[in-house]
Amino acid sequence: MKRATFLLIAVVAVAGVVALTANAKGNMDEKAAPVFGVKLPLGYRDWKLISVAHEEGNLNDLRAILGNEMAIKAYRDKALPFQDGTIIARLSWRYISSEENNKAFGRFQSFVAGPAINVQFMVKDSAKYAETGGWGFAQFKDGKPADEEVHKTCFACHHSAKAHDYLFTHYAP
Amino acid sequence: MKRATFLLIAVVAVAGVVALTANAKGNMDEKAAPVFGVKLPLGYRDWKLISVAHEEGNLNDLRAILGNEMAIKAYRDKALPFQDGTIIARLSWRYISSEENNKAFGRFQSFVAGPAINVQFMVKDSAKYAETGGWGFAQFKDGKPADEEVHKTCFACHHSAKAHDYLFTHYAP
Repeated sequence: MKRATFLLIAVVAVAGVVALTANAKGNMDEKAAPVFGVKLPLGYRDWKLISVAHEEGNLNDLRAILGNEMAIKAYRDKALPFQDGTIIARLSWRYISSEENNKAFGRFQSFVAGPAINVQFMVKDSAKYAETGGWGFAQFKDGKPADEEVHKTCFACHHSAKAHDYLFTHYAP
Repeated sequence: MKRATFLLIAVVAVAGVVALTANAKGNMDEKAAPVFGVKLPLGYRDWKLISVAHEEGNLNDLRAILGNEMAIKAYRDKALPFQDGTIIARLSWRYISSEENNKAFGRFQSFVAGPAINVQFMVKDSAKYAETGGWGFAQFKDGKPADEEVHKTCFACHHSAKAHDYLFTHYAP
C-alpha cells in the first residue's frame, strides 16, 4: 500500500513537471514585444467580451475588446484601478461590407469582420510598468510583435483616458 | 461497507435532485419567448466570441455574436450542420459616436457600443424545430421576450443563409 502511494505521487509529480515544461516552452517560443516585453497571452481568443467598436479612417476596422477573468470582474464591479495581472485584448478585423447579409436585408447596410488586422494587449503590472500608468502595451500580427516605433506610441495616446485607468473601452451591458 | 456505499449513493441522489430542482426553478422564473418557446439562456454574456458586426439603417447598431461551447467548437472545426444543443447569441447595442475617443485620435472616427438594444438567440434542436431548419429563435430585451409577430419573421430572413446552416455570421479569426 505504501509502495502504491509512493508510485502514485511519483506519477503525479512527473506529470506536473511535464506540464510545466510544456507551458514554459510554449511561452519561450513566442517572441516578446519590444519596449514592454509583453508576450502573446495564451488563450486570449477564448476570453469574455468587454465591448465592441468601429474605427473609421486609416484604421477602418471592427474590433472586439476581450478581458481575462480579472479584467472582466473589475469592469463588472466598476472597481478601478485594475489590479496587477489584468490583461485586456483588443482584436481588430478589416471592416468589410457583407453582400450576403445585404441581400437578406434588401438594402446596403451590413458590415462584418473581415481578415484579422492585429491584436493589441494591455497588461497591468504597477511596479514593472510604473512609468506608463502601470500598463505594458503590445501589438501582434499573426503572433509576431510590431516594432519598437509602434510600441512607443501606445501610452502617449492612452494617457488621455487616465480617468478610466488609461482604458478607452467601457463595458457593454 | 455495504451500508456506507448505500449512504453515499443516497447522498449523491439527494444532491442531484436538489441541483435539478434549482435548475428547473431558475428556468421557470424566465418567461419563454413565443412561437419557439425559447427561454433566456443562463450565462450567455460569458460565452466566447464568434464575430462582430455593424448594421446601418433602422437597426443602427454594433453587435457581437457569441456562442456556447458547442457553437464555438463547430465554428472552429468548420463542422456544419450544428449539433443539437448549440446556441448562438446575438447582442446588439446602439451605435454611438465616442467624443472621448475622437479627441484622442484627433478626428471624428470612433464608434462604440451604447445602451443595449436587445439580445437574440438561435437554439438548435433538429426534432423540435424541424420546420425551421432545426433552429428555434428568440428575442429578449431586459430579460423580456418580444411578441409573436417579431418571432414569425426570424426564419423567413435566416432562410437565405441555408448554405451555412441558416447562420449569417462567419467566425472572426
